[in-house]
Amino acid sequence: MKRPQAVTDLIDELKRLPGIGQKTAERLSFFLMRGKVDQATRLATAIQNIKEKIILCSVCHGITESDPCGICSDTSRNQKQICVVEEPHDVYVMENMGYFKGVYHVLLGVISPLDGIGPGDLNIEVLKEKVADKGIDEVIRATNPDMEGESTAVYISKVLKPLDVKVTRIARGLPVGSDIEYADSVTLLKSLEGRMEMG
Amino acid sequence: MKRPQAVTDLIDELKRLPGIGQKTAERLSFFLMRGKVDQATRLATAIQNIKEKIILCSVCHGITESDPCGICSDTSRNQKQICVVEEPHDVYVMENMGYFKGVYHVLLGVISPLDGIGPGDLNIEVLKEKVADKGIDEVIRATNPDMEGESTAVYISKVLKPLDVKVTRIARGLPVGSDIEYADSVTLLKSLEGRMEMG
Repeated sequence: MKRPQAVTDLIDELKRLPGIGQKTAERLSFFLMRGKVDQATRLATAIQNIKEKIILCSVCHGITESDPCGICSDTSRNQKQICVVEEPHDVYVMENMGYFKGVYHVLLGVISPLDGIGPGDLNIEVLKEKVADKGIDEVIRATNPDMEGESTAVYISKVLKPLDVKVTRIARGLPVGSDIEYADSVTLLKSLEGRMEMG
Repeated sequence: MKRPQAVTDLIDELKRLPGIGQKTAERLSFFLMRGKVDQATRLATAIQNIKEKIILCSVCHGITESDPCGICSDTSRNQKQICVVEEPHDVYVMENMGYFKGVYHVLLGVISPLDGIGPGDLNIEVLKEKVADKGIDEVIRATNPDMEGESTAVYISKVLKPLDVKVTRIARGLPVGSDIEYADSVTLLKSLEGRMEMG
């Protein structure tokens, strides 16, 4: 006895999502099946909406409902200070902090030779043009502190070098509230290299 | 700077699913956003379909696209041997085994006083009527071997006692391929109680 086709279809679609395997897909399907009709409808509508309403900002390549996005069109922000992040999602992580008042540039990925992603696949050339044309003061590289993120940061720094712009990197170091005893040597090294005089 | 409303809506809807928290919901939303349009559409359609096409079988309360379901209408199966399971999902787990040739009865839940679910909320009364009316030979209780499943199995056995029907329980014991050294005492006890002579 096979599952009804509608159930198999939903399980197959859910399995395409990252981090969702057969068991989780089955559990989610049965949850949606047992739940109220309007819950499933709201979820289906929300999924459709995200593809219909969300576009990429033509300036920063972040996600937005109107182009240019609220950050790129906000004149009260410092449009000459650009924070470079990997994914649109990272913009909101930075914004949650409520401290940064510059603008963003989303690479839409990270250099990863193993996945066949080279610099040409990312928004690096447009970053260079932006810096050259708009008299940018500072480019803060906020890519992830992992191998791909670090290589990408190094690459960006090389590309921007001829343009005589200040290029910085967010600090690597010990997370606040952590314990030196459990820190790995590389993080500890970065934290020592990045040491600052107390004000 | 807030996220676009469409993104917030999708994250909120995804968070209602079991086992999906804020971080996972964000990751899934950004995945769907970055993915191809037709992938999101297929997922949305599959979710809608499951509510529109799937109904509960009026005989066994399992899920089906036509009533009665393929198992309950299959005359080659032993309609007098009923396997009682907690959820519609469990039917397909049993069917995967390819051994059981009787039919099912889905309780649609399990007795759980902490969640306010009593025997009256489950399909236990209809099971009793079915057994009384149809001359059932055997009721196999295949509820989960956890506290709620065991209490439910005990309750069913009490309800069916006056009807003079054979009521069995699937065996608790050591999983095949496991190691006695790592077995918990309760499982080991159940496995000893359920010992069988080798054929």
